[in-house]
Amino acid sequence: VDPAALDPATLDPAILHPALGMNFFQDMLASISERKRALIERSQRRTGVGANRLALSGDPLDDLDKLCRILISGSGEASGVAIASEILERYSGLDGQEKAAFFRRLVLDFGPDREALRAAFEAYDKDPKAETLRGLLRRAEPPRQELFRRLNLAPGGTSRLVALRGDLIEASRSDPELAALDDDLQHLLRSWFNRGFLVLNRITWSTPADILERIIRYEAVHEISSWADLQRRLAPPDRRCYAFFHPSLVADPLVFVEVALTREIPASVEDILTEERPFLAPEEANTAVFYSISNCHTGLRGVTFGNFLIKQVVEELARDLPALKTFVTLSPAPAFRRWLTENRADPERTDLTEAGSATLALLDAPGWVDDAEAKERLRPLMLGLAADYYLNAKIGDGRPLDPVARFHLGNGARLERLNWPGDPSAKGISAGAGLMVNYLYDLRSIEANHEAFANQQTVAVSPQITKQLREFNAKYVSEAKHV
Amino acid sequence: VDPAALDPATLDPAILHPALGMNFFQDMLASISERKRALIERSQRRTGVGANRLALSGDPLDDLDKLCRILISGSGEASGVAIASEILERYSGLDGQEKAAFFRRLVLDFGPDREALRAAFEAYDKDPKAETLRGLLRRAEPPRQELFRRLNLAPGGTSRLVALRGDLIEASRSDPELAALDDDLQHLLRSWFNRGFLVLNRITWSTPADILERIIRYEAVHEISSWADLQRRLAPPDRRCYAFFHPSLVADPLVFVEVALTREIPASVEDILTEERPFLAPEEANTAVFYSISNCHTGLRGVTFGNFLIKQVVEELARDLPALKTFVTLSPAPAFRRWLTENRADPERTDLTEAGSATLALLDAPGWVDDAEAKERLRPLMLGLAADYYLNAKIGDGRPLDPVARFHLGNGARLERLNWPGDPSAKGISAGAGLMVNYLYDLRSIEANHEAFANQQTVAVSPQITKQLREFNAKYVSEAKHV
Amino acid sequence: VDPAALDPATLDPAILHPALGMNFFQDMLASISERKRALIERSQRRTGVGANRLALSGDPLDDLDKLCRILISGSGEASGVAIASEILERYSGLDGQEKAAFFRRLVLDFGPDREALRAAFEAYDKDPKAETLRGLLRRAEPPRQELFRRLNLAPGGTSRLVALRGDLIEASRSDPELAALDDDLQHLLRSWFNRGFLVLNRITWSTPADILERIIRYEAVHEISSWADLQRRLAPPDRRCYAFFHPSLVADPLVFVEVALTREIPASVEDILTEERPFLAPEEANTAVFYSISNCHTGLRGVTFGNFLIKQVVEELARDLPALKTFVTLSPAPAFRRWLTENRADPERTDLTEAGSATLALLDAPGWVDDAEAKERLRPLMLGLAADYYLNAKIGDGRPLDPVARFHLGNGARLERLNWPGDPSAKGISAGAGLMVNYLYDLRSIEANHEAFANQQTVAVSPQITKQLREFNAKYVSEAKHV
Amino acid sequence: VDPAALDPATLDPAILHPALGMNFFQDMLASISERKRALIERSQRRTGVGANRLALSGDPLDDLDKLCRILISGSGEASGVAIASEILERYSGLDGQEKAAFFRRLVLDFGPDREALRAAFEAYDKDPKAETLRGLLRRAEPPRQELFRRLNLAPGGTSRLVALRGDLIEASRSDPELAALDDDLQHLLRSWFNRGFLVLNRITWSTPADILERIIRYEAVHEISSWADLQRRLAPPDRRCYAFFHPSLVADPLVFVEVALTREIPASVEDILTEERPFLAPEEANTAVFYSISNCHTGLRGVTFGNFLIKQVVEELARDLPALKTFVTLSPAPAFRRWLTENRADPERTDLTEAGSATLALLDAPGWVDDAEAKERLRPLMLGLAADYYLNAKIGDGRPLDPVARFHLGNGARLERLNWPGDPSAKGISAGAGLMVNYLYDLRSIEANHEAFANQQTVAVSPQITKQLREFNAKYVSEAKHV
Repeated sequence: VDPAALDPATLDPAILHPALGMNFFQDMLASISERKRALIERSQRRTGVGANRLALSGDPLDDLDKLCRILISGSGEASGVAIASEILERYSGLDGQEKAAFFRRLVLDFGPDREALRAAFEAYDKDPKAETLRGLLRRAEPPRQELFRRLNLAPGGTSRLVALRGDLIEASRSDPELAALDDDLQHLLRSWFNRGFLVLNRITWSTPADILERIIRYEAVHEISSWADLQRRLAPPDRRCYAFFHPSLVADPLVFVEVALTREIPASVEDILTEERPFLAPEEANTAVFYSISNCHTGLRGVTFGNFLIKQVVEELARDLPALKTFVTLSPAPAFRRWLTENRADPERTDLTEAGSATLALLDAPGWVDDAEAKERLRPLMLGLAADYYLNAKIGDGRPLDPVARFHLGNGARLERLNWPGDPSAKGISAGAGLMVNYLYDLRSIEANHEAFANQQTVAVSPQITKQLREFNAKYVSEAKHV
Repeated sequence: VDPAALDPATLDPAILHPALGMNFFQDMLASISERKRALIERSQRRTGVGANRLALSGDPLDDLDKLCRILISGSGEASGVAIASEILERYSGLDGQEKAAFFRRLVLDFGPDREALRAAFEAYDKDPKAETLRGLLRRAEPPRQELFRRLNLAPGGTSRLVALRGDLIEASRSDPELAALDDDLQHLLRSWFNRGFLVLNRITWSTPADILERIIRYEAVHEISSWADLQRRLAPPDRRCYAFFHPSLVADPLVFVEVALTREIPASVEDILTEERPFLAPEEANTAVFYSISNCHTGLRGVTFGNFLIKQVVEELARDLPALKTFVTLSPAPAFRRWLTENRADPERTDLTEAGSATLALLDAPGWVDDAEAKERLRPLMLGLAADYYLNAKIGDGRPLDPVARFHLGNGARLERLNWPGDPSAKGISAGAGLMVNYLYDLRSIEANHEAFANQQTVAVSPQITKQLREFNAKYVSEAKHV
Repeated sequence: VDPAALDPATLDPAILHPALGMNFFQDMLASISERKRALIERSQRRTGVGANRLALSGDPLDDLDKLCRILISGSGEASGVAIASEILERYSGLDGQEKAAFFRRLVLDFGPDREALRAAFEAYDKDPKAETLRGLLRRAEPPRQELFRRLNLAPGGTSRLVALRGDLIEASRSDPELAALDDDLQHLLRSWFNRGFLVLNRITWSTPADILERIIRYEAVHEISSWADLQRRLAPPDRRCYAFFHPSLVADPLVFVEVALTREIPASVEDILTEERPFLAPEEANTAVFYSISNCHTGLRGVTFGNFLIKQVVEELARDLPALKTFVTLSPAPAFRRWLTENRADPERTDLTEAGSATLALLDAPGWVDDAEAKERLRPLMLGLAADYYLNAKIGDGRPLDPVARFHLGNGARLERLNWPGDPSAKGISAGAGLMVNYLYDLRSIEANHEAFANQQTVAVSPQITKQLREFNAKYVSEAKHV
Repeated sequence: VDPAALDPATLDPAILHPALGMNFFQDMLASISERKRALIERSQRRTGVGANRLALSGDPLDDLDKLCRILISGSGEASGVAIASEILERYSGLDGQEKAAFFRRLVLDFGPDREALRAAFEAYDKDPKAETLRGLLRRAEPPRQELFRRLNLAPGGTSRLVALRGDLIEASRSDPELAALDDDLQHLLRSWFNRGFLVLNRITWSTPADILERIIRYEAVHEISSWADLQRRLAPPDRRCYAFFHPSLVADPLVFVEVALTREIPASVEDILTEERPFLAPEEANTAVFYSISNCHTGLRGVTFGNFLIKQVVEELARDLPALKTFVTLSPAPAFRRWLTENRADPERTDLTEAGSATLALLDAPGWVDDAEAKERLRPLMLGLAADYYLNAKIGDGRPLDPVARFHLGNGARLERLNWPGDPSAKGISAGAGLMVNYLYDLRSIEANHEAFANQQTVAVSPQITKQLREFNAKYVSEAKHV
């Protein structure tokens, strides 16, 4: 066998791309990034792309509109990069109202040409073949999609388009017609942020400080209070953090997850975040706990990575640390408190026995968090209510009311354990009445769980929780209303 | 000013992302690549994605079809990566006829649903708003686009899809209906290979050997005969080579250009490729000669990078070596010989004087290449004919007949100098009758040239060539037919 | 010219090692470091190097001694790495007194063999040739040098030996005989930390956090109070920081310098460290101010890098930012206050006029820092005294009393400007009476300055300071004692 | 436990230096290397270090001598880098005779000062303490050691000093007094190339071409005939290659080993180097064969790395591929043929029976390599003679005559298997009479084997070979001379 003669596309890549080959590629990215930086610097220094030559009016929106038309017309292809930069630079200088006005113009002026679209549809409908389909697609795709693709020519373009979509989502709240524009942008970003282009990387205490600074800023579940707090989450041998990055969003993570390696499934986030604790040697851990997962960019809403991230981190950890057997989350229950409140307030839905109601009333006393006896009495009731909440409280399509549950169950995880009280922080009590939940990621059953959930909305649940619900029903629920 | 408070998206990136920050990112890519490799290896080892469970039939095309339906249905999202890998693996095992059959199925079975598309169009046409446009777009986009996006989930997916499109282009020659499929794939690849995602890098004698091996294989203009030949093009201080890469096509260039640094515009490729020559210190060069530019992947046909590559390399070189003043190509004239032959054979178009025709007949003697006197006599005539060819021989849309001229003039270059004889190799004589051409890239006039060419098909040309044409007409062309 | 045939050692390295070639090397270091880490981890997990087999006694010092003998004997070469690790591991577990005892053993037991040394000297003295010189050197070099070289086999050995020397310097204060040991270690570290092996790198806000954490810890001149303070020194476009690293001290800088880019020579460190200030575009700066330089490791005392660092940073900045014309320090005057106090207290040396003495007495009022009038009156006097201090206060060898002056003047810098009050911080007042000094690094005169200082102790000084001294003498110094 | 408070030197480095931290460091090296390149380029462009100012004579040797004195005097410290570069540049321009003359000057002029050395010795001998020892060492160390240390300041200095020592070894053949100089240089290189500073890396088909070019050039055991041959040794999944590098010898390996992964111990190098063979999946291999190990630099003779390389590669492979159980060499027997010839020619030592001698005579027929019957008859005899050779042929110190055996046995390997005929190449027959040998590296017994060999010259040998010797003695050796 002559290795030189083999087709690289079908050959075992271990032959042609061992680790070292990557270096070349890494260097490319470093060099292009420096170049990009220089380009951006230069573009920021100049006063405009031949503003005189382009006969701009001075009105910011009119000029932006004109620049967009020039960019999309392609007549200035040679200066596409400069014009794209100019547009994004001018855009970033607009205030909120101007941005909204700019978006409306894109909806109106860069949408499909209805007449041409109708003609294209009729041609296709009469004779559906490659040529007419091509014509239809060309006319149906709003020109602003091509505009966005060309804006991406600008150095830093991808990052700026993601930020622009963040602005757009904000503006859409008060102007539903902007949804059309958001559809285009989301369609494009889904294509560009295809899972195949994302790169997973571990975040450590040796990660560049500018990235760590963003981790601090983006953390959405359990606030990182300081660099020392961050160090406690990254530096110890029994802690891990992983993030997805995109090649064009340098130094800016898309989504990240924080992991604790433990010897048992923790019931409370305090167990994990406490300052004073002994470290565990990684190879002695048998459990990996995903205790925080944060999306970083509003502008990427609807472009999902979280499920891929968790699964890939599970695979990564399972390979690195073969002693790990259990992969589990420690998750909040963000809608539990609201459900509880509404449920108790609504006589139709209130089905607790009197004793149950009396016990539950202990929750109304502000001091229950520090009242061991109250907690002792509340505990079985709360666990039963929580089981009821996860298994029986649904939204319209039959999936659970709890959004975190929908995410993890949709990924194929199993509802594994309920922990009460699990999060005694103010935020934890106000949102989840102190409840914390473990979802189990078992690689062998993820696929089946996912399909059962996707197709029949079946919630994968541990026997323990089923039992808790049964006991709760027997003990606390009025007979007439047994679930 | 508190730097921590600044918005990273609008801030001068030099502040937040100096060169070192890149390291982190480079590492990510290295790590993901190793992981991809491991994944591919593993996927190649297993015997199939639960073939039993999926109730596959054993017929390769039926099974591929079924797997594609499963992938696109999303009901198996959790195993999307595995299914995408399986499809691409099975695809690569098909022979040419089976591939063509698979493509036809994609055209037929994964095209738009005509009824649904008609309904969506009517809804939009009646009430054109975000919602109905969204519906129309969803129905107009052939499902195979989503199929391709999901195939990209597979490790190495992008590379394999590019190869698949290469197969498709081949198959399309005998089956024009496959054009619809090619439209979809080209649309997707244009989005993914957006200029904003490409990275330029220099290729040197320190580049990994597997990449160099591909440079040897991909060179399409002046064949690289051996590793020693390659070294002569990369290692000397007065040689440069640059390529574009895409983050997902690791170690595989998209397009590359070879450059010689000189003290004058060369007339012949022999001046550049000769083995025995003194080296020039780079900072003493005043001219950069682009003597070879090669596209690497048939599957990326229609996704243009060449123009961006040349312009970026010009900028790169101008920054690194400020003494460089002239950026020029040394290009072949691939249609000149054919034009000459047809022109001389056609009495309608033959307009040479008798003396001119007699001189031109010297070309028919096989030994003219080594006949100094013949060359001396031919030279002014050939230069005149070449000027005529570039300025007057057109295709239907008014652009020059010569494809290389269309490329460079379309980029905004100027037709600078004609060199005869410039390429005495067999290939050079059979295609271009020995003619070599210099196109000049002058950053100050690129934009104007490009626009004049794009809008009025005006050919930017040096005064010297205009003069050569004038003199040729006066001396060699029958009066009645003066151009 | 066949580039393959050229000798790599004499060839222009641009041919054979363009930037990309570095990747390979970088990767090597990454891989070795991971491996080292794994090795260290492993070594820390085991309980000892076959302690039983080695017949160790259990007495920590005896056992260390024994292990050192085994290591140096070479009879256990195959396990040299393990034994070296064991020794360093055991050493790091000793307390201060035990360490001192261990050092004393090294002095006594691993010094030269006097009898053998005498014989070797006599053989050499009688017949001085290669062989006898070799014998003499072998006998004169204390065996502990070889011991230290073998300890370096341990993963992380270099770093640990540097730390060990830090301990040794501490222990030497109370035990002067340890100087012999320190001589050996210093000799070795000087060889290993040869300037040729050091690598300069810029420290930025994208530098890994663990390195930045050390920068915070090591800063010795102007304390870094928080990560936000650090960010203010690294992130703005008009700030630079550079450090020397050694390949074997991964992530641990040896010496670093902080630089501010400005448009004028600053008189006060407050100008630089203030939180609220506009940023300057780097290319608009004409002055680079070295406002803090810190050595990081006590254990590298006497192994000088500071002078190389400053010179290389000057070259680096001059190349990157050609508009920079002035390279200057902003330095403390650590012995000025003491000199002032002693000088004033000593009637023999006090030579101020009565008016001068009266003015100087203003310094005794604790509130002078905030008393504009007092400062106005003190300023000319203090500048004159400072000029006197730098030009006339000497230590035994004729060099200036001020250690910072000795460092910079020894590097070839010029005493450029005196600033009073320049550092009104408590530390600045207690050490330097508020004085700050600018030393000028002018690449054209560094060499001449250095030689004049090294040979004749001539202090290079600006005309301005000479004039200040002259005026001071005329105005404030009693005639009889004119300098 | 607060990780920030922990001492980095004693802490588990996994906490503070996870893989990513390496990036920073890698970048440093890349940047310094580019800078070095620029420096060298610049230094090569200038015409000399102020030759006029230094009052050089024009005589190359006198001037070199003068420059060396200036460098060592330190009076020009500020320009040390430039002077060191100048010296090395001028040195590389000398011819062989001039280099030898230069070396003689270094021996004579930069040796110890005998009078000062005597005084220092006497002071020490009278009162041996730190201070006098320091004085003695300073006087005993020849000044050329400091000269070499300062030459290392030059960009590329280390590489050039290694080349210089190569020249010196060559020159020493005809001038034994140069040994003194070689002692100094070897002492220094041993210190600088301490195992603790070396980095191991895998060489693959993705390694930069300039490094691969050197691998081709340096291969000393089985010549690499072309790039295709190299690719066959690097690219297949069942091949490995590892090299040691030094941070200061960029892109230039020190020693490398080629490895084949197999399912049995090969008897012949043809099994490994054949072009046509199926590949083995790495994880299916149980044996790693070290079939070629080459030192790259004459100038590093006596600075041993080979033993460290093999052991580290064994550890590396054992970790990556746990299925590997046997680590074995396939080695030549470079002195076997000579021993055989001398042994047979010497009646004193010839002890074969007549039958044995007759069989052995078959070797004299030139065609035996292709004569299956002859080989069949020779085989048992040759294996016996080989066993005799390895176990009984010794040099003065009791170690085996065979140098390859001394190397591997000294590393702790075991003589495992004799293969005849194992290398039928012309080189293999002329040096080893066709014999190839396997040495076994068994990590569990390496230490014990090494010590037994080092202390008692005991050769670790497999029972099979002992048995072959016994049978050989019984069958082929005259009774009187039984071994």
